[in-house]
Amino acid sequence: MLRNIVAPLRGAVRRSAVVQCRAYATSGPYGNFYYDKLQIEKSKNLKQRPDENTLSFASVFTDHMLVCEWDAKHGWDVPKIVPYQKIPLEPSATVLHYGLECFEGMKAYTGQGKNKNEHYLFRPEKNIERMNRSCARIALPTMKVDEVVKSIAKLVDMDKEWIPKQKGYSMYIRPTMISTEPTLGVAPAKHAMFYTILAPSGPYFKNGFKPVKLYADGTYVRAFHGGTGEYKLGANYAATVMPAILAAQKGYDQILWLTGEDKQVTEVGAMNLLFYWVNKNGEKELATASLDDGLVLPGVTRASVLELCREWGIKVNECKLTIDDVVTAIKEKRMIEVFGAGTAAIVSPVNCIGYQGVDYEVPTPADGLTVKLFNHILSIQHGELGHEWCRNIKDYI
Amino acid sequence: MLRNIVAPLRGAVRRSAVVQCRAYATSGPYGNFYYDKLQIEKSKNLKQRPDENTLSFASVFTDHMLVCEWDAKHGWDVPKIVPYQKIPLEPSATVLHYGLECFEGMKAYTGQGKNKNEHYLFRPEKNIERMNRSCARIALPTMKVDEVVKSIAKLVDMDKEWIPKQKGYSMYIRPTMISTEPTLGVAPAKHAMFYTILAPSGPYFKNGFKPVKLYADGTYVRAFHGGTGEYKLGANYAATVMPAILAAQKGYDQILWLTGEDKQVTEVGAMNLLFYWVNKNGEKELATASLDDGLVLPGVTRASVLELCREWGIKVNECKLTIDDVVTAIKEKRMIEVFGAGTAAIVSPVNCIGYQGVDYEVPTPADGLTVKLFNHILSIQHGELGHEWCRNIKDYI
Repeated sequence: MLRNIVAPLRGAVRRSAVVQCRAYATSGPYGNFYYDKLQIEKSKNLKQRPDENTLSFASVFTDHMLVCEWDAKHGWDVPKIVPYQKIPLEPSATVLHYGLECFEGMKAYTGQGKNKNEHYLFRPEKNIERMNRSCARIALPTMKVDEVVKSIAKLVDMDKEWIPKQKGYSMYIRPTMISTEPTLGVAPAKHAMFYTILAPSGPYFKNGFKPVKLYADGTYVRAFHGGTGEYKLGANYAATVMPAILAAQKGYDQILWLTGEDKQVTEVGAMNLLFYWVNKNGEKELATASLDDGLVLPGVTRASVLELCREWGIKVNECKLTIDDVVTAIKEKRMIEVFGAGTAAIVSPVNCIGYQGVDYEVPTPADGLTVKLFNHILSIQHGELGHEWCRNIKDYI
Repeated sequence: MLRNIVAPLRGAVRRSAVVQCRAYATSGPYGNFYYDKLQIEKSKNLKQRPDENTLSFASVFTDHMLVCEWDAKHGWDVPKIVPYQKIPLEPSATVLHYGLECFEGMKAYTGQGKNKNEHYLFRPEKNIERMNRSCARIALPTMKVDEVVKSIAKLVDMDKEWIPKQKGYSMYIRPTMISTEPTLGVAPAKHAMFYTILAPSGPYFKNGFKPVKLYADGTYVRAFHGGTGEYKLGANYAATVMPAILAAQKGYDQILWLTGEDKQVTEVGAMNLLFYWVNKNGEKELATASLDDGLVLPGVTRASVLELCREWGIKVNECKLTIDDVVTAIKEKRMIEVFGAGTAAIVSPVNCIGYQGVDYEVPTPADGLTVKLFNHILSIQHGELGHEWCRNIKDYI
């Protein structure tokens, strides 16, 4: 089988290659991104802030952005917070030709009740650590995690009036790294830019917790052994747009990406996917695709869900799953719940998986694990539970 | 085997999906890109043109660029030729986040001898046809091929003094399509931009015909069944940069990308790869990866080489090839020549393939097929053979 042949090879070879990548990207003066050198230019034309009840996902941006330029000779320039503005790019910049770009998605939240004037970040260092791994994979520069998190916290603090106040609302944070190299050879960028923009966003589920229908697709493939599925590269997203249109035309909300000869279950593109089921041995467990094969994004929400479930005494199984495993469990009524986990929706219940012309229905109990996780994580994010994952932005700056 | 399971599925399903993609991208007002509406703004600050003997690949750009903007409601705006300039992009433009970009590579040539004041394009319509397929795959708009080719010819004509004069030199043409959609949802772009820039370039082989060493890599994978290997998307290039660094550290010039359980031979990233050998049945033939599996770019130079060889009575075999087939042929001394074919180098001889720690030497005869093809195609491109593939830019505008 594909996996048996490729996976052992990947195990050692891939890890050594990844180590080489990281050594490349972090050697030299590349780590010299310093928060204490941050320069601030305040916007003189503050924008009208939208009514938070009208907000959709990440289509309105705040007054400021964080920008820092890098070149291979000098490393990082000083980071700057500047008025939100267009980025003038050379038409030859290789971000526009060879997809030399990666990004992150995280959020800032407003406290509730007596903490209504406080604002919080949820595990931002996890995102910047992952961004460094993404950058290294495509030979873009890396940064010191703490310095970047502090700089982003400062940006969030400057635009904190934009953070929506209601529970379930948040301000989406988009750190981005692009190659600005202006020569057309397919080669490592000698010029790059890191920037971060902020977008106040409404809740993913405007009218309560709406389950999604997934289309399990074996025609188009998102990730594969030897590919980049575990990194948050722009390159992983381009090819997903057209299949998503075709799935929507068939009445589905999102695609459950399958890969390989045995149609391994990977993720939903915007979310990791988790199965709360009774396994073949009769044990109740939460199963999800393992990170070992490099086929799924190591989601921060995924990790948080798994940590919480382990804490709550639920058996967690990070393993190889195939679409046949999933369909069989549904047919045998062993599937308790299925949900996605990601920054946008936190957790998103799944009520149907379409595969080979059949719609397999999945239960969505109102008092189930999905709802419990959603409420618990949301309360952590809004600072209501005093959890170590959630820190006041004041603590960073 | 992977191929046996996926390929039949792809055959029908994929083709129907591609048809749907194309229907999506070309319906509505998307085809309304008209050459006769072209607006021209001449540069008032012409640049100093470099000495053509100092030119490398695509690092200097000419005085003008072709630009046309598109939105989903109105289709294409009027195309414009404007002074070469930076493109101001919203920081949220999805080309910078989700790799929603594709491009082409083609060239303009100066005539030789009595035709030294003439300038030529080589099969440009093939490139724009391929660009439309790339666009459709990622839900970017398509264009009428003839209208685009005329517009590009006009741009080349305006900057024709930049086309290097010596044989083997050329002006590289880079048509590019990017999403300018300024909202962060992973969704079809409702705003896009097409542009074309020009870069005078020296010959690929500055000091004569230098053979390249390839590293056959099964660790990192460029293309896979269900992926986008057959389209010229930025997304296909991002992940190749780091493995190329690692191969260079080992002393190789380029990577021969393998894929699948049986390590199928695909292409070299910047070139298709062709094997002139005596096959297992004792027949002399030119073999190369078939286009059927969607794993290799359908190169214009590849197609031209195959057409010429068929014309010359050489047996051509577009088939599935594995690295074992290649290595066995070299060991059994059945390999006559190996060469890459692409716009940059035309054809590029290969003298070594490194695989699993062994360097397999390949002959590079001075009077072989590779050299014959190089000289013949170069003469066509410079207008010396009066071939239908080569047209004077005056004929387009």
